Amino acid sequence: MAKSPESIEKLRTEIAKMPGIGIRTAERLAYYVQSLSNEEARKLIGAIREVKAKAITCSTCFNISETDPCPICASRGRDRSTLCVVERVRDLAAIEASGSYRGLYHVLGGRIAPLERVYPEDLTIDGLLRRAQESEVKEVIIATNPDTEGDSTANFLMDKLAPLDVAVSVLARGVPAGGQIEHAAQSTLAGAISGRRGVSAKDK
Amino acid sequence: MAKSPESIEKLRTEIAKMPGIGIRTAERLAYYVQSLSNEEARKLIGAIREVKAKAITCSTCFNISETDPCPICASRGRDRSTLCVVERVRDLAAIEASGSYRGLYHVLGGRIAPLERVYPEDLTIDGLLRRAQESEVKEVIIATNPDTEGDSTANFLMDKLAPLDVAVSVLARGVPAGGQIEHAAQSTLAGAISGRRGVSAKDK
Repeated sequence: MAKSPESIEKLRTEIAKMPGIGIRTAERLAYYVQSLSNEEARKLIGAIREVKAKAITCSTCFNISETDPCPICASRGRDRSTLCVVERVRDLAAIEASGSYRGLYHVLGGRIAPLERVYPEDLTIDGLLRRAQESEVKEVIIATNPDTEGDSTANFLMDKLAPLDVAVSVLARGVPAGGQIEHAAQSTLAGAISGRRGVSAKDK
Repeated sequence: MAKSPESIEKLRTEIAKMPGIGIRTAERLAYYVQSLSNEEARKLIGAIREVKAKAITCSTCFNISETDPCPICASRGRDRSTLCVVERVRDLAAIEASGSYRGLYHVLGGRIAPLERVYPEDLTIDGLLRRAQESEVKEVIIATNPDTEGDSTANFLMDKLAPLDVAVSVLARGVPAGGQIEHAAQSTLAGAISGRRGVSAKDK
């Protein structure tokens, strides 16, 4: 990596800690920050400060919000009988954006990944089990990511939820809408085939 | 895009202004900032402030530095007879990191790109022409990026430098070291073939 002024290198180091940001992108962004007008830099710093000051964690579902409970937990219009368990707030936001779910959420704060030293006790699983035992909760939808860690986290949760008086479901696996079968991963196609739906008159 | 708390959305907007950062990456980074400890957030803000306070532009070569003139312009160990013209400070840093150049630099601040409304007068071309006329300068190496805008900027500079008493050169084009011919772009291969070097005994 090239030698840059010390202040640029320091900022690059901070930026490179961000998820998915390599050292080269970090350097590009550090030089971008240097190129900002004072007014623009103030806006950026202000926005960081504001997020830190205002965005808090909902003590019920662990969503990030500016209120506690968060607007979803506080809403009277939501179906309180269903909890959708997601790894991250971003997953919650994506499901909300789909407009296809009207229940409540529970944000785990990650997934079980022993190789990265993330264990069940690092996640909000206790809170989930407590909520799943509330009388109004009828179903828990496990919406962890469809990858190795997400699946093993889902399995762990299924074991923990099995003894409770609550229905447990997982998201459907299949080919993504708008995707192309030609480019789908083998595991995606395997899931789509094993989970195929009958549509012939005989099946209806 | 999903609905996030207002402070997260604000920060996302600021981050999405950064070059090469899409709205999804910006959202991921905004949530990352939210997840930082107060201490970590302070470090990030401090690093931004420091870059803005300390990193300045060298009034000679337009390098970014914490001193003016920058360490390269101020160095007694550099070959002052050669100027290497680059688009951006990052390009300068990359050439420095290669350890293959001991002359001085001149940072244009971008490239001519009329479609993006970047015209010659937006770059530091006047400063370059002034420096190129200094008696100690014997050669100007044009090291703009090997793409359409970079090439037309190089052509523009060649025209401007032609009347001056200075040698002008451009970087060699060819297949990149460590690359694979199979994956090289057609234009890269075309440049490599037209610029081929004789190595037979006859050529030596």
